[in-house]
Amino acid sequence: MASYATWLESSIDGTRLELDRLQSMHAGRPLLVRYDLERARREVRREVLAGRERDLWRYGELLPVQRRENIVSLGEQATPLLACPRLGAQLGLEHLTIKDESHLPTGSFKSRGMALAVSRAKELGVTRLALPTAGNAGGAAAAYAARAGLECYVFMPKDTPLVNRLEAGLHGAKAFLVDGLIDDCGKVVREGAEAMGWFDLSTLKEPYRLEGKKTMGLELCEQLDWTLPDVILYPTGGGTGLVGMWKAFDELARLGWLEGEWADGRRPRLFACQSAGCAPIVRAFDAGERHALRFENAATVASGLRVPAAVGDFLILDAVRASGGQARAVAEERLLPWMFRASSAEGLGICPETAACFAVLEDLVNEGVVSPESRVVVWNTGAAQKYVEALEAPLPELPALGDIDWAAL
Amino acid sequence: MASYATWLESSIDGTRLELDRLQSMHAGRPLLVRYDLERARREVRREVLAGRERDLWRYGELLPVQRRENIVSLGEQATPLLACPRLGAQLGLEHLTIKDESHLPTGSFKSRGMALAVSRAKELGVTRLALPTAGNAGGAAAAYAARAGLECYVFMPKDTPLVNRLEAGLHGAKAFLVDGLIDDCGKVVREGAEAMGWFDLSTLKEPYRLEGKKTMGLELCEQLDWTLPDVILYPTGGGTGLVGMWKAFDELARLGWLEGEWADGRRPRLFACQSAGCAPIVRAFDAGERHALRFENAATVASGLRVPAAVGDFLILDAVRASGGQARAVAEERLLPWMFRASSAEGLGICPETAACFAVLEDLVNEGVVSPESRVVVWNTGAAQKYVEALEAPLPELPALGDIDWAAL
Ligand SMILES: Cc1ncc(COP(=O)(O)O)c(C=O)c1O
Ligand SMILES: Cc1ncc(COP(=O)(O)O)c(C=O)c1O
Repeated sequence: MASYATWLESSIDGTRLELDRLQSMHAGRPLLVRYDLERARREVRREVLAGRERDLWRYGELLPVQRRENIVSLGEQATPLLACPRLGAQLGLEHLTIKDESHLPTGSFKSRGMALAVSRAKELGVTRLALPTAGNAGGAAAAYAARAGLECYVFMPKDTPLVNRLEAGLHGAKAFLVDGLIDDCGKVVREGAEAMGWFDLSTLKEPYRLEGKKTMGLELCEQLDWTLPDVILYPTGGGTGLVGMWKAFDELARLGWLEGEWADGRRPRLFACQSAGCAPIVRAFDAGERHALRFENAATVASGLRVPAAVGDFLILDAVRASGGQARAVAEERLLPWMFRASSAEGLGICPETAACFAVLEDLVNEGVVSPESRVVVWNTGAAQKYVEALEAPLPELPALGDIDWAAL
Repeated sequence: MASYATWLESSIDGTRLELDRLQSMHAGRPLLVRYDLERARREVRREVLAGRERDLWRYGELLPVQRRENIVSLGEQATPLLACPRLGAQLGLEHLTIKDESHLPTGSFKSRGMALAVSRAKELGVTRLALPTAGNAGGAAAAYAARAGLECYVFMPKDTPLVNRLEAGLHGAKAFLVDGLIDDCGKVVREGAEAMGWFDLSTLKEPYRLEGKKTMGLELCEQLDWTLPDVILYPTGGGTGLVGMWKAFDELARLGWLEGEWADGRRPRLFACQSAGCAPIVRAFDAGERHALRFENAATVASGLRVPAAVGDFLILDAVRASGGQARAVAEERLLPWMFRASSAEGLGICPETAACFAVLEDLVNEGVVSPESRVVVWNTGAAQKYVEALEAPLPELPALGDIDWAAL
């Protein structure tokens, strides 16, 4: 299972950079890993996957890690794709499924990206990592760094959810609270990088986290027998999730692994979902811009969406537009009710970021943008349990046994 | 993939009860599901598993669910079995692996049991569930009940970890706090059962949670190519984990699926691990008893181990003794340091219950009870992130960018 990665390509001007060296960005914009897909198309059949472990490393040909011994893994099994008929019926949808990423190490999809980024960092000789995080990425980075035996520095906003603060420390990272938002944390990493010898793991500032996220698209397609859904809703912060998936669909098409109309170029409509409390991508989408302005006073309980400025903004907007989808925001007040409603309807623990997707979906169905018979996949990007502040809901205390009024329970 | 389940057997006197009816206990003691293993041995080869989904339902022949449409699932994928060489070296062990159950729905192994119990409850026409819980079982029950569309009542001690309190509510269960321990909660369920029409899901008070836990043993064995490890450490509260695994090994032997010396009757040594803050099983083990006295004033940060009296005490003690293992307790003060040490050594998030196992393992290696070349599996039964109270560790605040002393970070 050899990697078909060939070089790194600038996403803004196509410049090619060497793969065998540590690279970050080019002209201030992300680098994308390119593969020799012509050769892979001739040499690799999708049937080879049947005999492999059901984890993300099964897609080794389409991943950048050069030698398997450099793989840093905490067990990234394929996440379940679960039909949700009860919730679908509530929304007026016949085919609603949830891809549940809460099963991944540290309880969020961030571990896909970190598994790849840390593996490549290790492969290329890095010993010290640093990153800014809105929440889940810090815990995942700390965990994978520990697994690899690398040092890790994590910078997060002061009001990052408790669980994210705890998990970074639990895995032995040097974690700090910053008076500001994720981009202020990013500044710290940039400023300190030279003095501290840090390799910067920020979203899209190195090319490999994206490749990890890409496996969401590969996995989804394999689980759907090499077809794709009509509609995908994804909670969008820095955007690697959506952009990674879009890249996956493109590579699958070039490989010739897609079936039917999907092989002929059809793509799912992508909906980038944000909270009105921090919706820079939606604002740019509505304004017809390719780049987004910083969103001032960003505030949302969906901490993963609290990304006021994304270096890959144009990649998100390009993908959403090319797919025929939209970037949509919903009022902050709709998140917690949807978190509870979706989690109690089907028993999956829905994170507040994904609650935003459900509120968007409700609107899309009401507006007729998504029709009842559409095949819809909503991405549950993290475990609801990681949001203890959001969930606060005191339980009633039971009186002593003799005093219980059963009928009133 | 038809079930080979035949009847229910009393664990205390062998009485047989019908499988097709709702049953709880017999003579106040647990019922065990029995299978026609003679017939299964003739008809089912272990090779059939290769073509099946990698979830616990793959073992359908050895599970009690009669019709596949009754399966209530949240995606119970096989959990990773991860080599932990760094932690192993620290402990002086050459072959240390961790079976990481935190990947399961709701972040703990409890979902295995609840998946089976709720599926069978649904299959047998139950509409209202109730259970006492020390923590994780309540969240799992609430989630599976929601998935099945059943009502669920959850009773937990007032000082149950925050995340467990929240998750029961999140999934729409009717959850209540009780001034007492898990057995006091159990009394509430018993008292209210008739008036409320509850089916009692308490540990080992219905026969199916154990069958779900059994899949841990089946899965481990399949992952080890039909061999078993020399030593297993398991954090023991109500005991279904250990007892379920022991039952799995027995059934695998009867099926003829085990390899080599394991086929000839060799078994892993089982170590039931508890905190000195609640160690009823250890006390009975040391005293040579088959039943345990209630452990008064039970208190431990490892909430899953806070089970002062276990209805299946003799099943745990029988299995541990038959295996040549031991029941061991460690001082409460050793749990948090081990939680941090193990989680930072390998990047897995180790729960406090499993931290007890690591402290026990340290002792066993020091005493020479476990030798350096032993193949050791430690069970990580839940996600560390579910224990926010245990982890409390404030992070340092970073000064403003200009004022950072990089050398001091
Ligand atoms: C749970 C969750 N969902 C969604 C996102 C946003 O993902 P992306 O940055 O890939 O757009 C994040 C990012 O922190 C997250 O933690
Ligand atoms: C994380 C965890 N570990 C271990 C246990 C004990 O398991 P058992 O009751 O099967 O002995 C529990 C039970 O609540 C638990 O939640």
